[in-house]
Amino acid sequence: MAITFELIKQCSKTGARAGRLYTPHGVFETPIFMPVGTQATVKAMSPDELKAMGAGIILSNTYHLYLRPGHELVAEAGGLHGFMHWDRGILTDSGGFQVFSLGPLRKITEEGVAFRSHIDGSKHFLSPEKATEIQMALGADIIMAFDECVPYPAEYDYAKASTERTTRWAERCKKAHTRKDQALFGIVQGGMYKDLRAMSARDLVAMDFPGYAVGGLSVGEPKPLMYEMLEHTVPLLPANKPRYLMGVGTPDCLVEGVMYGIDMFDCVFPTRVARNGTVMTSRGKLVVKNAEYARDFRPIDPDCDCYTCRNFSRAYIRHLLKAEEIFGLRLTTIHNLHFLLNFMRNMRKAILEDRFLAFRQEFRAQYQLH
Amino acid sequence: MAITFELIKQCSKTGARAGRLYTPHGVFETPIFMPVGTQATVKAMSPDELKAMGAGIILSNTYHLYLRPGHELVAEAGGLHGFMHWDRGILTDSGGFQVFSLGPLRKITEEGVAFRSHIDGSKHFLSPEKATEIQMALGADIIMAFDECVPYPAEYDYAKASTERTTRWAERCKKAHTRKDQALFGIVQGGMYKDLRAMSARDLVAMDFPGYAVGGLSVGEPKPLMYEMLEHTVPLLPANKPRYLMGVGTPDCLVEGVMYGIDMFDCVFPTRVARNGTVMTSRGKLVVKNAEYARDFRPIDPDCDCYTCRNFSRAYIRHLLKAEEIFGLRLTTIHNLHFLLNFMRNMRKAILEDRFLAFRQEFRAQYQLH
Repeated sequence: MAITFELIKQCSKTGARAGRLYTPHGVFETPIFMPVGTQATVKAMSPDELKAMGAGIILSNTYHLYLRPGHELVAEAGGLHGFMHWDRGILTDSGGFQVFSLGPLRKITEEGVAFRSHIDGSKHFLSPEKATEIQMALGADIIMAFDECVPYPAEYDYAKASTERTTRWAERCKKAHTRKDQALFGIVQGGMYKDLRAMSARDLVAMDFPGYAVGGLSVGEPKPLMYEMLEHTVPLLPANKPRYLMGVGTPDCLVEGVMYGIDMFDCVFPTRVARNGTVMTSRGKLVVKNAEYARDFRPIDPDCDCYTCRNFSRAYIRHLLKAEEIFGLRLTTIHNLHFLLNFMRNMRKAILEDRFLAFRQEFRAQYQLH
Repeated sequence: MAITFELIKQCSKTGARAGRLYTPHGVFETPIFMPVGTQATVKAMSPDELKAMGAGIILSNTYHLYLRPGHELVAEAGGLHGFMHWDRGILTDSGGFQVFSLGPLRKITEEGVAFRSHIDGSKHFLSPEKATEIQMALGADIIMAFDECVPYPAEYDYAKASTERTTRWAERCKKAHTRKDQALFGIVQGGMYKDLRAMSARDLVAMDFPGYAVGGLSVGEPKPLMYEMLEHTVPLLPANKPRYLMGVGTPDCLVEGVMYGIDMFDCVFPTRVARNGTVMTSRGKLVVKNAEYARDFRPIDPDCDCYTCRNFSRAYIRHLLKAEEIFGLRLTTIHNLHFLLNFMRNMRKAILEDRFLAFRQEFRAQYQLH
């Protein structure tokens, strides 16, 4: 097994759990948030900065790297780890989500997806076999099965046909996957239909993947509906395997995801909003770009011990952002990632001390107040 | 005296010299290259990265900081040092060069220069007194007299009138300058006319500034003409004061400047070309963005020990630049600044060992070859 999961502590009142994920590039504590490095770089960050804030696994995107610089080139460079000089964990997605997002630029068949590059319009074809081949070349520790993310809203019949195809594709991925030092995760789909979620989970669990993702959530549906799906789906997954909720990374959703038993998360949220001048604090979000912070010489979050908060003021960061200086984007990104990684560590601590529900309540009180 | 200059070694065959500059924020070895941090940040860099590569003094721009975020705000933040979290040396220019560069947006009188902001078109007026007041608020270790940079080419009569006015402005700056922890440098002008350079130097030296800049060079004139002006002008400046050649920073010009007796340099060159994908190496420049480096897994410069060259390949850097990733700009900027600071250290070593001419010859042979 390329990876193994150790369950350390199960919350006595919720599904929340603390564990350890053993990978070829280190052991990582769960629940974990994985910063997104779409193009073989977490935007604005250096590997050393990510390490300094305790990042363990990062996510990179197969679709982007396949188009540029190309997976063969990355393989020649010693895989993603060597190419980007990152010796901790990496997870790659399958490219499915990105090609489906291309809209009119793509066409789905049983065989796979034909699409045009968003960069130069060139024609390409991704299939379960091709997505797996690319991910084997990229060489991440964890790779994902090629799936269709059922859009929201979707008719029942479409969702059912799509989910069944995703299951067939998962089988083809499993067959195509031959690297013993990588773990291939299956992805549960099913749209917002509980029976389809159950069907998807049942079929994928039968294939015995080393880990499972819950896909097709946080795609535009109301949050209560997402939580309902999680509550329904997660218990259908084996307790001894890691569970990964794709594309989710706001503090409130992280808390709920953990509560329902999710171990792994990724999202562009902290890095993307950082570059737009929005930062997270222990009292909620703060738009540091706003005029009210022009003469505010306090750190972003007085309770935070990140590089940004230890050394720079809101006023300085606002100035940098207004002046479109790269260092401003670096400082807000450092803070947001540090904040979220720390947030996960605090949640883990609460689980270990069996006070997760209290943590959740405290968080909800504090975060809504501001 | 806010700053003092110690002459350590004079080359036996050229004007080149090695010295030490004592400032309120540290002692810095000369000849020195000062990275440019126009808007209170050296583009793409953190203060820690600058320190790690041995940067001593950085330059910041009065014009930009006056317009945004405003000098009063910077003063409230504890001056530039506090605002940008930089505890080594800072030099601010006077804003003169920038407002004169505004072309039709500015109007010069004896009193000063009326201009419109390049940001929002608002009206402003800079005078010797105002430029000095702003620079006192910014609080750099070294500040510059408000001057007119005579354009190239310029008629003799215009150059003469402008240079005489610059001298009168220098007197007004001196009178307005009251901060004892700052050194105010005079700027020698005179265009490309040797008698005007001599007049400017004579008049400014009579005012006994703690340091002198040579301004109005590298403004479009042929390099041999710039060198001729340097050869003529530098010997007119006192040997016991630092000499600063403004806006010059390509390796070839640095070598020639040092040869004629210059101690300090600044230029956006290394940081600007870095962001365009051009890097300096011991064998000349290299456009790392070019297709030929797509599969080149060597570092930018195998002889370089900067963070970039120790950890990342040309192929990875090219990928980042093509994908418009911030980290690519960081890596090329780190390399170029490290290269240039190291280049200055090597020149200093050659001076101390009295083999500067040999250094120059070697450099010229190597650099032109590639």
